[in-house]
Amino acid sequence: MTSPFPLPEPMRRAFALAREAEAAGEVPIGAVVTRDGVIIGEGENRNRRDNDPTAHAEMVAIRAAAARIGDFRLTGCDLWVTLEPCPMCAGAISHARVARLYYAVSDPKGGAVEQGPRLFAQPQCLHRPEIYGGLAEAEGSALLRDFFAARR
Amino acid sequence: MTSPFPLPEPMRRAFALAREAEAAGEVPIGAVVTRDGVIIGEGENRNRRDNDPTAHAEMVAIRAAAARIGDFRLTGCDLWVTLEPCPMCAGAISHARVARLYYAVSDPKGGAVEQGPRLFAQPQCLHRPEIYGGLAEAEGSALLRDFFAARR
Repeated sequence: MTSPFPLPEPMRRAFALAREAEAAGEVPIGAVVTRDGVIIGEGENRNRRDNDPTAHAEMVAIRAAAARIGDFRLTGCDLWVTLEPCPMCAGAISHARVARLYYAVSDPKGGAVEQGPRLFAQPQCLHRPEIYGGLAEAEGSALLRDFFAARR
Repeated sequence: MTSPFPLPEPMRRAFALAREAEAAGEVPIGAVVTRDGVIIGEGENRNRRDNDPTAHAEMVAIRAAAARIGDFRLTGCDLWVTLEPCPMCAGAISHARVARLYYAVSDPKGGAVEQGPRLFAQPQCLHRPEIYGGLAEAEGSALLRDFFAARR
């Protein structure tokens, strides 16, 4: 079952990046950063290719966008990602001052937004984005399920 | 007041990196990764210089070490950092499978190890390093206090 509504263009691009990651033997997760609706940074999981434990899709997209605009803060920018961010990525989203976070699928095992440490709800958290989760639970869950099934 | 015991060499190097960061106008935090007692990665805070919201000292050191050994996991390696890691860096430490985490000063405002989300104590956490905190509270606190006093 797919969503009855078309996904916003940035999220469709994030899914395309997730499929590129899968084709490269990485965990299928993709992300983009937009400013005023325009994509200014893209990322897909690159842990294995880059020998980089920090190279989650969100981190790659955030670093690309910040380098492009020449600012270590992405004030007013939005992040779109296929899976609920982990603690590392949620922390980076907060450091970068991302304005709005959109994710397709919640992640009970590794997510840090809705579950587990719920980082943006911690009193310590200095910047909390607006959060829009669960935009495409069906499509995103299928992509991840197929990936992990193929690896067994 | 300084510690009555000499600091281990990797932590002294982390403090030297912290002072380099300060001289460059960054937040004075430094980190190194060691394997079998040998430094294989170094990092200092580079947020402003690199226009990179993810460029905390720990992240820079972890990425450098992983690139150097050609593996996205730092199994058996240790991380030494002058300040208690934030959620982003604690998440990266877990992803990288760092064996032992040593930090000089705890951070009530932004730390995620002893306080706040206490990430390594979360049931979700897949890898928890051995943790040695508070190795040099006096030296580290003075460095940070001087830095923030100078910026006021």
